[in-house]
Amino acid sequence: MKRHAVGILIFDEVEVLDFAGPFEVFSRTRLVPGADSRRNDDSAPFDVFTVARTRDVVKAIGGLRVVPDYAWGHAPLIDILVIPGGFGTRALLKDSPTIEWIREAAASASQVTSVCTGALLLAKAGLLTGRRATTHWAGLDLLAALDPTIQIERGLRVVSDVVVTSAGVSAGIDMAFTIVENLCGRAVADETARYIEYPRAVTAV
Amino acid sequence: MKRHAVGILIFDEVEVLDFAGPFEVFSRTRLVPGADSRRNDDSAPFDVFTVARTRDVVKAIGGLRVVPDYAWGHAPLIDILVIPGGFGTRALLKDSPTIEWIREAAASASQVTSVCTGALLLAKAGLLTGRRATTHWAGLDLLAALDPTIQIERGLRVVSDVVVTSAGVSAGIDMAFTIVENLCGRAVADETARYIEYPRAVTAV
Repeated sequence: MKRHAVGILIFDEVEVLDFAGPFEVFSRTRLVPGADSRRNDDSAPFDVFTVARTRDVVKAIGGLRVVPDYAWGHAPLIDILVIPGGFGTRALLKDSPTIEWIREAAASASQVTSVCTGALLLAKAGLLTGRRATTHWAGLDLLAALDPTIQIERGLRVVSDVVVTSAGVSAGIDMAFTIVENLCGRAVADETARYIEYPRAVTAV
Repeated sequence: MKRHAVGILIFDEVEVLDFAGPFEVFSRTRLVPGADSRRNDDSAPFDVFTVARTRDVVKAIGGLRVVPDYAWGHAPLIDILVIPGGFGTRALLKDSPTIEWIREAAASASQVTSVCTGALLLAKAGLLTGRRATTHWAGLDLLAALDPTIQIERGLRVVSDVVVTSAGVSAGIDMAFTIVENLCGRAVADETARYIEYPRAVTAV
């Protein structure tokens, strides 16, 4: 089975649940239901990894320290690109190499996604132009200011346009389930939600 | 302000969301509402850190690699002990040093908690004897077998006895909010849930 490569960008001051929620969902999805199928990767449809500018330890918000799996340029080709948020995005908005890396990774990905204020970076990279999108409630106005062509969706948890964006932090879990459902079907998404005991509340629109 | 020290045990094959969910909730709680108060720790009631047997990189389920903040014996005194789950717990059930460390950390903590199959380790340490408790649905029978005096609660997401246990994986987020509410009040817990856009669905019983 060819697995979908899920590349999650991490950086200093990334919000923990923004990257850990999608990491959990994608890495625990199995095409075979039950607890036993989670003991190995035999029926895993996703290969999930973190990627950062370098392999230096990333210090997330709250101080959690994560070792990136890959540095830019050494990562496998990414099918599903996940851009999480956090206060660290504010500095990255002015960081051309990051914006350029996102643009290039997005160009070769089959699906681009964001969690929370990760959408700000996608907007800066020009990936949300003319699209419907959302972000954390505290970032909605900045998202609109970065690209006035974006149709801001203020009441939705997950927004499925060509790019799939989500609202703040925990909404990234719902975003990931939306992608799982799109690629693997509703039954697989719901069974994985049952495995991690997450009450899926929303369907993306 | 004296902060509550939240110590989260991590180990190889720990489930990512089991530790990342409570880490997120405790580390983002603020006594002052709004997004700005999250930019610093001035009104943070919790000091959150990870602890492991050594400071070697821990490889969580799915391959996420985390650098523990402290090794046993070098950690600050823990007020709120969080024991997450994951397949790694099965090996730890036979690992006397881990069970002994949990017993000692619990003895000096003001609150002991578990997420998912972390409850198995608490049971092995004798900390759930005669108590109401829960765990991941796939671990309920093993929990009962480890200590037949435990009153297993099969239908609850968070069980508040002297020790606060939770059901699988994502239920650890609700467990953390239960502790936040107990220590900081309902308004602070609900406002923090709003900050991370998490729909709190349960009240612990």
